Amino acid sequence: MKFKNLTGFLFAIISFGLINVASASALDDVMKARGLTQKDLLAAAKTYTPTAGRDEFIVFSSGGQSGQVIVYGIPSMRILKYIAVFTPEPWQGYGFDDESKAVLAQGKIHGKQINYGDTHHPAFTETKGVYDGQYVFINDKANPRVAVIDLHDFETKQIVVNPHFKNEHGGAFVTPNTEYVIEAAQYAAPFADKFVPLEQFNDKYRGGVTYWKFDRKKGRIDKSKSFTVELPPYSQDLSDAGKGPSDGWSFTNSFCSERYVGGIERGRPPFEAGCSQKDTDFLQVINWKKAAELVAGGKAKKVNGMDMLSMKTMVDAGALFLVPEHKSPHGVMMNPTGKFLIVSGKLDSHATVYSFEKMMKAHKAKKYEGKDPYGIPIVSLKDSVHVQVEVGLGPLHTQYDSKECIAYTSIYVDSVITKWDYCKGKVLDKLSIHYNVGHLMSMEGDSVTPKGKYLVALNKLSIDRFNPVGPLHPQNHQLIDISGDKMQLLYDMPVPLGEPHYAAAISADKLKPAVRYKSGWNSRTDSISPFKTRAGREKTVRNCEGDKCTTEVWGTLIRSHITPEIIEAEAGDTVIIHLTNLERAQDETHGFAMYGQNVNLSVEPGKTVSATFVADREGVFPYYCTEFCSALHLEMQGYLLVKPKGYKAVKTKMVEGQTYTKADYDKQVKTNIATQAVINGVVKFITERNYKDFPTAVALVEDATDQLGFAATWQKKSEASAKAKDWQNATLQAGQWWQYQVKAADIGIRAKSYLEQNKAKKIKK
Amino acid sequence: MKFKNLTGFLFAIISFGLINVASASALDDVMKARGLTQKDLLAAAKTYTPTAGRDEFIVFSSGGQSGQVIVYGIPSMRILKYIAVFTPEPWQGYGFDDESKAVLAQGKIHGKQINYGDTHHPAFTETKGVYDGQYVFINDKANPRVAVIDLHDFETKQIVVNPHFKNEHGGAFVTPNTEYVIEAAQYAAPFADKFVPLEQFNDKYRGGVTYWKFDRKKGRIDKSKSFTVELPPYSQDLSDAGKGPSDGWSFTNSFCSERYVGGIERGRPPFEAGCSQKDTDFLQVINWKKAAELVAGGKAKKVNGMDMLSMKTMVDAGALFLVPEHKSPHGVMMNPTGKFLIVSGKLDSHATVYSFEKMMKAHKAKKYEGKDPYGIPIVSLKDSVHVQVEVGLGPLHTQYDSKECIAYTSIYVDSVITKWDYCKGKVLDKLSIHYNVGHLMSMEGDSVTPKGKYLVALNKLSIDRFNPVGPLHPQNHQLIDISGDKMQLLYDMPVPLGEPHYAAAISADKLKPAVRYKSGWNSRTDSISPFKTRAGREKTVRNCEGDKCTTEVWGTLIRSHITPEIIEAEAGDTVIIHLTNLERAQDETHGFAMYGQNVNLSVEPGKTVSATFVADREGVFPYYCTEFCSALHLEMQGYLLVKPKGYKAVKTKMVEGQTYTKADYDKQVKTNIATQAVINGVVKFITERNYKDFPTAVALVEDATDQLGFAATWQKKSEASAKAKDWQNATLQAGQWWQYQVKAADIGIRAKSYLEQNKAKKIKK
Repeated sequence: MKFKNLTGFLFAIISFGLINVASASALDDVMKARGLTQKDLLAAAKTYTPTAGRDEFIVFSSGGQSGQVIVYGIPSMRILKYIAVFTPEPWQGYGFDDESKAVLAQGKIHGKQINYGDTHHPAFTETKGVYDGQYVFINDKANPRVAVIDLHDFETKQIVVNPHFKNEHGGAFVTPNTEYVIEAAQYAAPFADKFVPLEQFNDKYRGGVTYWKFDRKKGRIDKSKSFTVELPPYSQDLSDAGKGPSDGWSFTNSFCSERYVGGIERGRPPFEAGCSQKDTDFLQVINWKKAAELVAGGKAKKVNGMDMLSMKTMVDAGALFLVPEHKSPHGVMMNPTGKFLIVSGKLDSHATVYSFEKMMKAHKAKKYEGKDPYGIPIVSLKDSVHVQVEVGLGPLHTQYDSKECIAYTSIYVDSVITKWDYCKGKVLDKLSIHYNVGHLMSMEGDSVTPKGKYLVALNKLSIDRFNPVGPLHPQNHQLIDISGDKMQLLYDMPVPLGEPHYAAAISADKLKPAVRYKSGWNSRTDSISPFKTRAGREKTVRNCEGDKCTTEVWGTLIRSHITPEIIEAEAGDTVIIHLTNLERAQDETHGFAMYGQNVNLSVEPGKTVSATFVADREGVFPYYCTEFCSALHLEMQGYLLVKPKGYKAVKTKMVEGQTYTKADYDKQVKTNIATQAVINGVVKFITERNYKDFPTAVALVEDATDQLGFAATWQKKSEASAKAKDWQNATLQAGQWWQYQVKAADIGIRAKSYLEQNKAKKIKK
Repeated sequence: MKFKNLTGFLFAIISFGLINVASASALDDVMKARGLTQKDLLAAAKTYTPTAGRDEFIVFSSGGQSGQVIVYGIPSMRILKYIAVFTPEPWQGYGFDDESKAVLAQGKIHGKQINYGDTHHPAFTETKGVYDGQYVFINDKANPRVAVIDLHDFETKQIVVNPHFKNEHGGAFVTPNTEYVIEAAQYAAPFADKFVPLEQFNDKYRGGVTYWKFDRKKGRIDKSKSFTVELPPYSQDLSDAGKGPSDGWSFTNSFCSERYVGGIERGRPPFEAGCSQKDTDFLQVINWKKAAELVAGGKAKKVNGMDMLSMKTMVDAGALFLVPEHKSPHGVMMNPTGKFLIVSGKLDSHATVYSFEKMMKAHKAKKYEGKDPYGIPIVSLKDSVHVQVEVGLGPLHTQYDSKECIAYTSIYVDSVITKWDYCKGKVLDKLSIHYNVGHLMSMEGDSVTPKGKYLVALNKLSIDRFNPVGPLHPQNHQLIDISGDKMQLLYDMPVPLGEPHYAAAISADKLKPAVRYKSGWNSRTDSISPFKTRAGREKTVRNCEGDKCTTEVWGTLIRSHITPEIIEAEAGDTVIIHLTNLERAQDETHGFAMYGQNVNLSVEPGKTVSATFVADREGVFPYYCTEFCSALHLEMQGYLLVKPKGYKAVKTKMVEGQTYTKADYDKQVKTNIATQAVINGVVKFITERNYKDFPTAVALVEDATDQLGFAATWQKKSEASAKAKDWQNATLQAGQWWQYQVKAADIGIRAKSYLEQNKAKKIKK
């Protein structure tokens, strides 16, 4: 007896009745056929998530210039949602319904609509330094803006435009109780919205850090209570807020403290040469609590309508100083205890661990090594460093483990992740990644309670990792197991849309999103919409003021018809359509798309949305539901009829395409009675089981009961028509009665299957 | 000795030196901790794809109302790309650069820009009925349009607007040699672009099928050679082309042949009741080859500028007839041999297998059971059916296996997939899916050579399958193993953006996309751009005609600077920026985003793109590269300076933020010499190995050699400046010399790691 390989032998051993032979050899065959090693199998077991399985962590990743936020699960690495933030996105109706258009309009720059954002750094709301799962903030580097996403429904609620900057990079980061969202400038520019020659760069161009006040109760940023701290025209980079002993302070690093201005087209060496000439740049250390007091004390000036504190005011108050850092750093990360700060220069091989205690000691003693050209005092590297460690070529970003003193640094040039002890200053492990990692992310790694377990390397290049898809490649997020002493690569995830920069992961159990809205809800303002429409209260109203006419529709959506099914308007009318989704069932979203008018809405259960457009020409414009919501989804349709201006109707009677007789009616009723028998069987099955112990089943039963209620309503209508011998209507109404029966049966069968699969028990009545 | 479970026992047995104990018990521990069964482990092994692994099939899925096409791999179920088609998408620069704006502009409806599409059915080009991997077509249901995607670069090249329809559903489907792309109408409407009362529905509203001529050589649809066949105002649904014996014919099903017009708001039963009242609808059978001859013979009339054949012309030519089909069907699928056609009604439990031979026999014998109200003859069900099979409640769509006579039908209401023998009419297996499946898809299932192996269920609801993400859920694509007798569920994939309707899968080895463009390429027209710019030929030109001024820039992008770094214009100027990516390296895409002007470009290696905007106000507008392209990526920046109209410059000299001395120069040169030593070591390592056997390594070496060439250029410049004792420039130029060294080192190290990991051999010189 000879075995082709170890696994074959293994399965031969255990085939004596101990385990299912077929499945064992099947595994062997599959591994052979697919070239999987035992290590691969272990990685597969660590990441594969069977149907209905749950991920342990949920990642919110920036989508880069896609302008979106990407949501995925760990360890399955399955992408769950793209949240539209700065870019219109039709699946979500974002930028198509009036409600979300209003959110996007908040983000206009000098009145110009911006239809993208370059998102970089997401940040969760925190309470006492712990992620609380309420909101996520995300920035736009290109057009300095910050957006607020509500984790109650995963929707963008607000966009604020920074009135002081022309570019930013270092947003969003939060203070430990989300008092402020920190947004730092990047490419220096004049604060004034006017032309200033580059020759005046040193004097008139400026950087800064904005502290956006977050109103937790309203779930919105309050611009009137926000302020900016003026900084030199260095390129500010990332920030982090202090915590514990360092709470009250924030840290922003920088590059190009040379203040070099390129101009390769005129013979000057480019920015990249002049901005990386000095060995060090500056870490900018700011006392934001003191700054807030200065603002409250009237020390700020209004610049472009928002408070700003000058460098001088800050320096005089002892609330601003600098510390040298290795050149071209990216990322400044406060450790979970708030005692140490890690910074590394991308053109260097060291990571520097700063001691907050040390730098504060020097600052308090006014022990400075000098001042920068703008009068900001400089605490020396010597007086602030805890330890410096050789971590690899091109260290970029550091994240923290749940284990004390353990950090991970992404190494861009070497394409590795370095695990090291930042207390003792000792490298512990290195893992190759593919290729050229930017940020990396550990679970709740920015909080005071990192969760360990996993790390994600956000790699900028994928090259040969995946099946090719043309010149524009996906990026590659690699999942790494950090639970043991040695890091283990688990999974390569292509990012199919966007160029993520940074991401943040939260324990899945902290998220409790809703599955429906209160009926008639404007999800963008989080309030009952004035256009909420109840079943039976639908209406279309046409009003003219002089030549200007408006056709306004208050409509509803339910499986599977749109009310109204016919809308009449005249050419030139402004048409406003308000739609409320009457469904209570989970996942019963309806869409609404209309020919030729750029109208496309997504209406989740309970939501009310509106679309406004000008019907600028006569014609016939079909509309329909875009979501496959029931077997009769394709019949969820209607027509907008735009008549010529001043059109006088010729009285004509509709000739039905099909006429029905008593025989048709009787046949339909027979079908309905048979269908009801099937439904009764399903109802019996369900009610004889402990379905009330299963929330999913309870929700399905509620939905089915609703559908049966609608069926009963149409049964009555059809019986009345039959009594009046109106067989045409009687038959059609009996048809609608049946439609609701079919929906009830569909849902009932789903509940039955669910109970069977989840082994519901028979109960005694 | 007691074992906690079978797996524990198994690993105990094999722990006597045969296998690594740690990893075996690790697998056991992981399975226990994650609650995985042996079946789950097998599914994991069948789908898990280690780093650099390849998928066997590539799926192109419609993105529904996202207006995109989703590309993912099987069996890994990892999404590789979202291709922008009907919706502007900034990551790809789609709808932001002038070149792609021109593609989107082709899709305007009556001059209105439509910023979304409701994509439904992708179709690959075919040669002799086999997928050839050249192009994919995708339709827009809402605004009847068809788009052409080139698989050479995964970009959208063309959008055509249907001039006859106001809505469609049944596109895109192709004839066996892609002579035509078939697009059928859905909601009937008047052909004329004007108001026609619904009372005239039966007489003036019409459906139809359009046959778009595809010019394979140009890779574009030729509207002038395309035509529409007029059909009754039934709601046309999906289509399929015949193949083999049925080549030359196409088949389009329909619903609402009742021609019912709803109006629930005026007391009428809704569309869903009236459109599903009759037991049968009509399959529309069309001889497209004959139709093409009729058009060539001058039998068509121009309607809205495109040829149309009337129903009468088609019926008279024997090129159009009807066959009854169970009511509200979705999908009509010709089997691989071209002999059988499967249709099923969503409100029924049967699938009907039609015999093409039988229906043709009756048609040729003019054996009809009557005519519809539009004079189209009807072949009876009896005279065309091969067999009818009870497949389940709400059968929707059928796909074919590689095994003869085997089909799979998605069952919407029951939420199952039924495997059955369509020759013998026998159900073989059923598998539960979650929940409410729409289409399903087998590998190359629409071609004459289906590949078997896998099936994907495109489920409309996910409800409890994934971690919750708010009221709007992802859809769920479930991967099913069909290689054995019984179907096995392998994987649940959430769809994070869009509502896919149908998908098509192609063998991965048929796709050979490019990784770069020819230098200066306009990827949308597939030709050299007139704005192609070579290195050193960059320029900015300002021209005025009267009051109207244009500032036009011919620029380039390369790691890591934009040329020009400073652009000057005056308020009111139209600014046109052309950018060519000079990179040859794979995956070295550069982006270009500018503050406040809604400018965001994606420039893949070799590509030339343009952005046009009006600089309507004075100010300072930073711009930068949005892709993390090198360690100095953040320094890849520049400024657009918009001066007030008629601004006269005050002569000022730039004061450098930092001045450099001979000592600085010497220090930089010392660094460069040390860096060169590192590079030489890497070069030695590579050239001593058989790197030429690895195309990836060869490409990296080419790229590194380019970078070293640039380094040499700047070395010369700096040495010249040093000779002239211009230490400021000498230092900065030496810095740029070093920047190129760093890039070369980065790439060289990547090549070295690649060779190490791929076990390259030492060679003798």
